[in-house]
Amino acid sequence: MKIGIYGYGNLGRGVELAVRQNADMELFGVFSRREPASVKTLGAKVYPAADAAKYAGEIDVMIICGGSATDLPEMTPALAAHFNVIDSFDTHADIPKHYANVDAAAKKAGKVAIISVGWDPGMFSLNRLYANAILPDGKDYTFWGKGVSQGHSDAIRRIDGVLDARQYTCPVEESLEKVRAGEHPVLTARQMHTRLCYVVAAEGADKAEIERKIVTMPKYFDEYDTTVHFISQEELDRDHKGIPHGGFVIRTGSTGGNGEHAHVIEYSLKLDSNPEFTSSVLAAYARAAFRKYKKGETGCRTVFDVAPGELSILPPEEQRAHML
Amino acid sequence: MKIGIYGYGNLGRGVELAVRQNADMELFGVFSRREPASVKTLGAKVYPAADAAKYAGEIDVMIICGGSATDLPEMTPALAAHFNVIDSFDTHADIPKHYANVDAAAKKAGKVAIISVGWDPGMFSLNRLYANAILPDGKDYTFWGKGVSQGHSDAIRRIDGVLDARQYTCPVEESLEKVRAGEHPVLTARQMHTRLCYVVAAEGADKAEIERKIVTMPKYFDEYDTTVHFISQEELDRDHKGIPHGGFVIRTGSTGGNGEHAHVIEYSLKLDSNPEFTSSVLAAYARAAFRKYKKGETGCRTVFDVAPGELSILPPEEQRAHML
Repeated sequence: MKIGIYGYGNLGRGVELAVRQNADMELFGVFSRREPASVKTLGAKVYPAADAAKYAGEIDVMIICGGSATDLPEMTPALAAHFNVIDSFDTHADIPKHYANVDAAAKKAGKVAIISVGWDPGMFSLNRLYANAILPDGKDYTFWGKGVSQGHSDAIRRIDGVLDARQYTCPVEESLEKVRAGEHPVLTARQMHTRLCYVVAAEGADKAEIERKIVTMPKYFDEYDTTVHFISQEELDRDHKGIPHGGFVIRTGSTGGNGEHAHVIEYSLKLDSNPEFTSSVLAAYARAAFRKYKKGETGCRTVFDVAPGELSILPPEEQRAHML
Repeated sequence: MKIGIYGYGNLGRGVELAVRQNADMELFGVFSRREPASVKTLGAKVYPAADAAKYAGEIDVMIICGGSATDLPEMTPALAAHFNVIDSFDTHADIPKHYANVDAAAKKAGKVAIISVGWDPGMFSLNRLYANAILPDGKDYTFWGKGVSQGHSDAIRRIDGVLDARQYTCPVEESLEKVRAGEHPVLTARQMHTRLCYVVAAEGADKAEIERKIVTMPKYFDEYDTTVHFISQEELDRDHKGIPHGGFVIRTGSTGGNGEHAHVIEYSLKLDSNPEFTSSVLAAYARAAFRKYKKGETGCRTVFDVAPGELSILPPEEQRAHML
């Protein structure tokens, strides 16, 4: 199947790499709003975003690699008028609205769209849903990290006197252990995660004041135990250049005549590169979107609507013989 | 939906309990090959297995709780001629043949069957498949335990001088840690699991000989580090009455231009009661079978063919709003 990439940042680059790992996929090219000559891909041809519709007949699935705040709410419905599309829309509260917009566009065009694909939303959502269906009587926990939070890193960078920053979200190990032990604890934000910040301050900046501004920042940091380390730009570039992430989805529940048997279902990810992993999930769901399209389906879907077998490169009989 | 239970051992009892936890399910009754008056349920009515077909119009899904060795290969195709059915067929090598038989019967009758439902095959299979689709370049590991292996416990009981026995399969922690660390180790059977046996010997039995027979038993024990403890029947009944199990499905893989980014996907279960957890999975897939039937689908399915959303008691719009 021929894949198009719409938007070329970390995620788009990740999709370019992911397509190489899937023998049944071929990359048509990258669509960018930037001047095509200025976009350095790993080899993919670059087209102007404005021309995308011209290539509708040559692309089986367009993977849209834009941001959730402003790009995807516009891009996904617009592109679903011409292509089967996949996006990683991750503003949880706005999913129903985005779904409705994309569904209308895809149905009208006779295309398939799969939105909110990645790991959260995405694989974590799936695992919450499976675990809830299996253990109706239970409690859900999601821990994130250790990983880089882009939003929190950006918030620190906006403070006066800060040149650069990197924020890690870390799960609180003791709380994780309590959950795993089936204690069903009620946990505050502070009891679930800590925040670890590496900050490059401008020469002469008031570091104590920067630290105060970080740890008291409403919503971002004030509800957490936050640690701030001041380091040099060199150290930041050397030791904190990666974009790792991950986390844990745990459901603890019980069965039996009186709930006497406890069960723990845990799914976890430890990712060296958040965007490359997300891109790998996008590629797998692109396969499913194209299969659904070929079966005559139209409209919007989420990871909840895709059977696991639709993601696999193996034919169903081989899945059953070797993976079941 | 109305659920029937065909076969009433540990698994059937588990389904009776699971149905109580699902607000959209109601138990029609239990079908048994034993004399109905002799079957003590937790409240369900008992019918003779031979009469099952008479109740075809009153049962939406029949959950078949028989053994994989001889029961299910006969029962599932036979019952699929009258009912939507679910089974937990777990003889991995025979799945393709069982699938073909059940598929033919269910298609002919216009019914839906889902086979090999549980946790392995079942949730573990799903997780292997998802992880393989996302990380094409990687390696799979499945560890079982700590949990009771019925087959190994039975094998010990067949030794002369053994009155009772309980065998636990345990994952080797160091190997688990190597896998999680992304070392992609190649592991022998011995490096993955140990076997821990609690044995009740007859008075005057030669314990050294029993132990020798256990640890050298081909396939069951000779390829593993096996520990044998002799205990009294009272101790066995007091400390080893439960049927716990669980395990870990891990895929480690890499992405990037040169595989420079490592990722670990891990799914694990820690179950106080293996049969009750399996029953809970069966109940969730019964919901999916009935939904597929109502949509007009017919034939055999596996967990690979069921979209996660079909398992949830929540309608799709609530799934998207609250679980994605």
